[in-house]
Amino acid sequence: MPKPKYVYFFGGGESDGDATMRTLLGGKGANLAEMSNLGVPVPPGFTISTEVCKLYYENDKQYPAGLDEQIDENLGKLEAALGAKFGDTENPLLLSVRSGAAVSMPGMMDTILNLGLNDNAIKGLIARSGNERFAYDSYRRFVQMFGNVVLNVDHDEFEHLLEEKKKAKGVELDTELEADDLEALVNEFKNAVKQRTGNDFPDNPRQQLDMARDAVFESSGNPRAITYRRLNDISEEMGRTAVNVQAMVFGNMGGTSGSGVAFTRNPSTGANQFYGEFLINAQGEDVVAGIRTPLPVIELRNILPDVYDDLVKIGSNLETHYRDMQDVEFTIQDGTLYMLQTRNGKRTGQAAVRIAVEMVEEGLIDKETALTRVPANDLDQLLHPSVDPDAQVEVIAQGLPASPGAAVGKVVFTALHAEELAAAGEKVILVRTETSPEDIGGMDAAEGILTARGGMTSHAAVVARGMGKCCVAGCSALFINEEALEFYAEGKRYTEGDFITLNGSTGDVLDGQVSLIQPELSGQFGTLMAWADEVRSLNIRTNADTPDDAKNARQFGAEGIGLCRTEHMFFGTGIDAVREMILADETAEREAALTKLLPHQRSDFIRIFEAMAGYPVTIRTLDPPLHEFLPKNEAEIRELAERIGVETQKLSERVEELHEFNPMLGHRGCRLGIVYPEITEMQARAIFEAAVDVAKRGINVLPEIMIPLVGHINEFSLQRKVVVDTAETVFKETNTRIEYLVGTMIELPRAALTADKIAAEAEFFSYGTNDLTQTTFGMSRDDAAKFLDDYVRNGVLEYDPFQILDQEGVGSLLQIGSEKGRSARPDLKVGICGEHGGEPNSVKFCYGLGFNYVSCSPFRVPIARLAAAQAVIEAED
Amino acid sequence: MPKPKYVYFFGGGESDGDATMRTLLGGKGANLAEMSNLGVPVPPGFTISTEVCKLYYENDKQYPAGLDEQIDENLGKLEAALGAKFGDTENPLLLSVRSGAAVSMPGMMDTILNLGLNDNAIKGLIARSGNERFAYDSYRRFVQMFGNVVLNVDHDEFEHLLEEKKKAKGVELDTELEADDLEALVNEFKNAVKQRTGNDFPDNPRQQLDMARDAVFESSGNPRAITYRRLNDISEEMGRTAVNVQAMVFGNMGGTSGSGVAFTRNPSTGANQFYGEFLINAQGEDVVAGIRTPLPVIELRNILPDVYDDLVKIGSNLETHYRDMQDVEFTIQDGTLYMLQTRNGKRTGQAAVRIAVEMVEEGLIDKETALTRVPANDLDQLLHPSVDPDAQVEVIAQGLPASPGAAVGKVVFTALHAEELAAAGEKVILVRTETSPEDIGGMDAAEGILTARGGMTSHAAVVARGMGKCCVAGCSALFINEEALEFYAEGKRYTEGDFITLNGSTGDVLDGQVSLIQPELSGQFGTLMAWADEVRSLNIRTNADTPDDAKNARQFGAEGIGLCRTEHMFFGTGIDAVREMILADETAEREAALTKLLPHQRSDFIRIFEAMAGYPVTIRTLDPPLHEFLPKNEAEIRELAERIGVETQKLSERVEELHEFNPMLGHRGCRLGIVYPEITEMQARAIFEAAVDVAKRGINVLPEIMIPLVGHINEFSLQRKVVVDTAETVFKETNTRIEYLVGTMIELPRAALTADKIAAEAEFFSYGTNDLTQTTFGMSRDDAAKFLDDYVRNGVLEYDPFQILDQEGVGSLLQIGSEKGRSARPDLKVGICGEHGGEPNSVKFCYGLGFNYVSCSPFRVPIARLAAAQAVIEAED
Repeated sequence: MPKPKYVYFFGGGESDGDATMRTLLGGKGANLAEMSNLGVPVPPGFTISTEVCKLYYENDKQYPAGLDEQIDENLGKLEAALGAKFGDTENPLLLSVRSGAAVSMPGMMDTILNLGLNDNAIKGLIARSGNERFAYDSYRRFVQMFGNVVLNVDHDEFEHLLEEKKKAKGVELDTELEADDLEALVNEFKNAVKQRTGNDFPDNPRQQLDMARDAVFESSGNPRAITYRRLNDISEEMGRTAVNVQAMVFGNMGGTSGSGVAFTRNPSTGANQFYGEFLINAQGEDVVAGIRTPLPVIELRNILPDVYDDLVKIGSNLETHYRDMQDVEFTIQDGTLYMLQTRNGKRTGQAAVRIAVEMVEEGLIDKETALTRVPANDLDQLLHPSVDPDAQVEVIAQGLPASPGAAVGKVVFTALHAEELAAAGEKVILVRTETSPEDIGGMDAAEGILTARGGMTSHAAVVARGMGKCCVAGCSALFINEEALEFYAEGKRYTEGDFITLNGSTGDVLDGQVSLIQPELSGQFGTLMAWADEVRSLNIRTNADTPDDAKNARQFGAEGIGLCRTEHMFFGTGIDAVREMILADETAEREAALTKLLPHQRSDFIRIFEAMAGYPVTIRTLDPPLHEFLPKNEAEIRELAERIGVETQKLSERVEELHEFNPMLGHRGCRLGIVYPEITEMQARAIFEAAVDVAKRGINVLPEIMIPLVGHINEFSLQRKVVVDTAETVFKETNTRIEYLVGTMIELPRAALTADKIAAEAEFFSYGTNDLTQTTFGMSRDDAAKFLDDYVRNGVLEYDPFQILDQEGVGSLLQIGSEKGRSARPDLKVGICGEHGGEPNSVKFCYGLGFNYVSCSPFRVPIARLAAAQAVIEAED
Repeated sequence: MPKPKYVYFFGGGESDGDATMRTLLGGKGANLAEMSNLGVPVPPGFTISTEVCKLYYENDKQYPAGLDEQIDENLGKLEAALGAKFGDTENPLLLSVRSGAAVSMPGMMDTILNLGLNDNAIKGLIARSGNERFAYDSYRRFVQMFGNVVLNVDHDEFEHLLEEKKKAKGVELDTELEADDLEALVNEFKNAVKQRTGNDFPDNPRQQLDMARDAVFESSGNPRAITYRRLNDISEEMGRTAVNVQAMVFGNMGGTSGSGVAFTRNPSTGANQFYGEFLINAQGEDVVAGIRTPLPVIELRNILPDVYDDLVKIGSNLETHYRDMQDVEFTIQDGTLYMLQTRNGKRTGQAAVRIAVEMVEEGLIDKETALTRVPANDLDQLLHPSVDPDAQVEVIAQGLPASPGAAVGKVVFTALHAEELAAAGEKVILVRTETSPEDIGGMDAAEGILTARGGMTSHAAVVARGMGKCCVAGCSALFINEEALEFYAEGKRYTEGDFITLNGSTGDVLDGQVSLIQPELSGQFGTLMAWADEVRSLNIRTNADTPDDAKNARQFGAEGIGLCRTEHMFFGTGIDAVREMILADETAEREAALTKLLPHQRSDFIRIFEAMAGYPVTIRTLDPPLHEFLPKNEAEIRELAERIGVETQKLSERVEELHEFNPMLGHRGCRLGIVYPEITEMQARAIFEAAVDVAKRGINVLPEIMIPLVGHINEFSLQRKVVVDTAETVFKETNTRIEYLVGTMIELPRAALTADKIAAEAEFFSYGTNDLTQTTFGMSRDDAAKFLDDYVRNGVLEYDPFQILDQEGVGSLLQIGSEKGRSARPDLKVGICGEHGGEPNSVKFCYGLGFNYVSCSPFRVPIARLAAAQAVIEAED
């Protein structure tokens, strides 16, 4: 039996490993081996495999027999390759030790540099560098890094000693300390270690290496790493770390040395140009530390032209090899280039689209690969205006990034005033403590919305996202006085007419008018979307309540409306008729009020059907509890009573009567239509009269009437009968007949659990995952913010289930509902119309369950299209 | 092939059918045949089987070939047996026609009497009865009954003519009309029929019979009957009716004739004595009409001793034959006794127990049969005081029968005053618009609770049932002015100190002090309970929050506590410490306040553990949202702020901050303990310190700590860790170790759906079906009353799911949760602690799912014990 192999050498143009051995060697180790195989200049070293990590934990933290010998053997190889020796006074072997699992994972030990230094080796480092201060600073840093990370001495202990030293010397900056100060510090640091741990600081380089290795393996089992793995669904296997031991190279050895980071393409724009920064006579950490200003990498061409050419060529080769844009780290030691790391580079949404499309054009990748290269959510960055990154800004408050994009406008405090100013051609920002359905008109008129209260799923946030409008919500640092028409932020008073700018992607509220960049849906975006449409099978619809929303959504590629909320129409011009209906004592009175509403609804439906010609339009019957249509406080009640000519007393009583302790679980949804069938009848009449009107003009119309909040088949049956009877009446009156469906929203656990019964009569299901999440978790969106933040921050939940569908809990109801539903009606049309319809993971989940469509806000339609394509590609793998 | 048989003769000591043919002949027909077989004198007749009903509906309302011949044949047999002939002027054959399905079912046509009368037959009836007025009155009634039921002429048409007649004659009562008036009416009735239907009233008796038969079959398909069958889960087969055609006998033919109803045992007390009423010279309907006062059946012994002896003997034989108490109808015609019907008699709960136990003693039935003879819910009548049925009462208002029993006391309007007066020895009734958790003390002190608002599951109702205390809720006819300390009912003003009486079993509010009957848990009750305990396998626990509740429940046979709500302790003496905790800005402050609460909780737990020695006690950690502990209105806030020495402003802000839109879905349950682990820690400490204290005194203590409102395993893990760590600390401090379990309440759909994950760490599940019903249906108990009444009344839902467990929807979550839970932990202990735990159907459902226990209010423990035994017996069948 051959001895098991635990340690893998790399360097000198050949290696024991390669890029395919990511699981065994970790990402970093596999890429170092691969680069070495490709002939890329990599400082040699070796990787202790993740298998050792596994055995370490399986065998009560004992290492397998033979490991030590293999490490010794590889160290020997390394010493031979470099002509250096551990602890040598002339050419000491110095090492970096880094962790590296198959997937990048925070929480584990990062890096120990300069390992191998002791009171002998320091002499060698001084000799080689010719720089005593550098040598002792490296030694000081090594003791500090090792003492903290490996020996668990508090970081502050060392910082305290450093401060004392600076005070004693009367200097302010670390860099002002001289070589002998640093030499003294090395000893003070070692004494501190002795005092804290009871042991001498290890001087033996081999012992230092063993202890560093132990620390890496230990760190992979620490709570933060475990939590991260659990939260990110990283398997135990993929979470095991390797230990990378590599020869140190120094970029700070003079004018022909340096360090830098570079990208093979521009990570902001995606342009195919080598891009990056470097510093001459500096180590890697100096490039990012910001004390010296790095130079653009193109400048290297003037300083070390051969090195620059090598670097660009290596970058290009690596990109071609990995078939993706690379992010590389390099060090130049005495005019020799070394690559320390390569990995796929992070990029903006815009860059991702451009790189993906151009790489297809260059023949580097195929279209399907291109589609997987753009995180669907990142498209959001392309679809909204954004704050000019070069603009000078003053942040006056920060709220939640409730709806992305940016907006500039004058502050207004009422929806009415917003509408007036907008009508007069002004750009306005609507500032409210919180918004309510009555503010819809003003929200629509405003460029952006700012609220002091409410979370990511508050009314303002949900509506703004639906409108694709920038919104900063829950900005509790604002003191808004709506009556005085003013707010305070950072001690400054803002009144109506003052300009502010919102950044809905970060939650920043900015003073004054900041310049914005408008989105350009480049040709490459269109190309990628077309590829996505070729691949995907899931239909993408939109949630749209108005003809304008519908038109907008068509431009983003929506193939129908998945949710048209009719109550938004009730809040418009018809609001007083709605109130008359609510105040009616008898059915006849209620019907009279409803008759007034009919023409409003009908004309809205006509325009929506026109906008969605040829595509299905799902219309939900009235959903919110009636009290939402009535005023809340006394003054408003008095005002309304006078206006519509009812007694204040009566109006007050009705408001009181309709009050609910838990409106979310109250008299709403189909429960309204069942107690007051005349409401459903009026709505059905408006829908069918509109449909007939449009159809008669030769436009293809496909209405789907959706009954909300059904929990029991009897509820659906009763409402379905009202719709069908009304349809027949209208068809008879107009002597026309059109095709339509009647289905239901599945938004209660009971509906999913009894879906077979419901599907016997319902022709389609649309999961209302917002409400379904509320009832499945027993959490109200409006109230959960108080503890949900705490939950997500502390890892009780991985994410806010109102933003990302909870596949385990809510998802299992989606599965049960669809399976039971299709058991009763095999051709049942199934979709989703909650906010999750535009969230990529949720879209993929719906594809996996065999849904027919997802429906989301107009601005998220492109995201859903891409996610749907990715779902197909991922399922093929 | 023999001809199919559709018609079954009975009478003359032998019949075509018997009691086993209930499905084919209906209950009435089968019993008539059986009685005839037994030699009981039954007027002869025949039954058209339910098979005909089936064929009628299956074949587009056509009768099967051969039916007419069989009817003719049986009519001939009947005429021969009686020596009578259809339409005969001397001895006309007169019939009663009645419907009768396998199960008794309202909504179907009831009875047509005197069928066969026409202008010829009337002569025969006059001749036979010697009573012209009687004969015409019978004719008049026949035309009216037939006209209404068979020919669908409005009942009012006939009543109107009758009124006109009385007016014309200047009399007030029907009985004052004379023979010729009635004769005239017969013609007027027939004219009315002709006018309405366009056809002559049918004179041909055979045609009358066919039409009556048709009407019976038609009525079994009418909407009311269909709805009833759907609501009561009656299969199509069991819902089909037969038609019973039987010779008329007349109890109104003179001094040796009569009619009566009787029970073979006393249906109120269960005493084994023949019991009933009769009238001489009267028809059956006169006995119940109340115009003449019937005599006790014992009197018959003096009037017609032989008939009486026959009657008692027949009753006794029938009881022995059916092995159950019989409810019989009889008619005496000219000194000859006829039995018209026998069926198992309805009885009170008390009678049911006595009869069941005595019949076992008499050897009539076995114990298991006895257990099935008492509807479990009827035990409720035995367990509470009740209004003396002989008392004179004045009902001043009616509300919902929210908690059974009766109570007398002085009106009080505040919980505080209730406590004060009760402490002074007064009996009080707490009258509130609605109650809140702060009223607990006053509710406990009161004899009964009366509220103007809230449904069967309002706070008042739930708490009162838990306390076994009488409650009338949602009595909207009351005008309560809490500030003026008064209420108005029926225009009368009641103030503090006025006496009222509540009947919680009917919802009646009575004026003054009405005398009550105290429950006597007779020896027979104990005997039956002992038999139930022998049979059942399900454990019965109780929901008890106080030591008194716990003691009480033990007396009712509870085998442990399934739910001890600790927040009830928070509302007691510790309320101000609770408020300090809520107002605390920092953890240390919160801990200080909690330290004050610790001794209160500990001493309560000690007394509960003592009361439940040897039985498990499930204690739920804090559940309600914190705002429930704070005052709501300004005055109360001001008062509290002063008392506990905080600024009113601060208290107001905290109240505002804690406000929730949907408290049911808000920051409550384990979400409190996760954000404030120190609360759970204090509660765990109180539990374990109490347990150790009790255990050290040699009392067996079995604590089970239950974490509420868990939706995700992580929530449970975190809370479990706090409990386990605290237990270990207390065990170390006290040098004692006791066994305990940590489990969770399953009250959210997500918990049931992910039960396998949760059971990996939880040692028991207890379904909180109140909350689970709310979230599964998306209906709040507090708000649902507004539409749930409408739902149940109109058959949208069969029943209120907060009262009877929804087996289809909520039940499927119970099943999913238990199966998944036990897949992860085969010995998982599973129970239910919602209100449904004391509802017999739900108890049986839980038995079917293999639960270990149900837990319910102390007063429902005997009901659950009996239901659990019945579940076993029914499963054996």
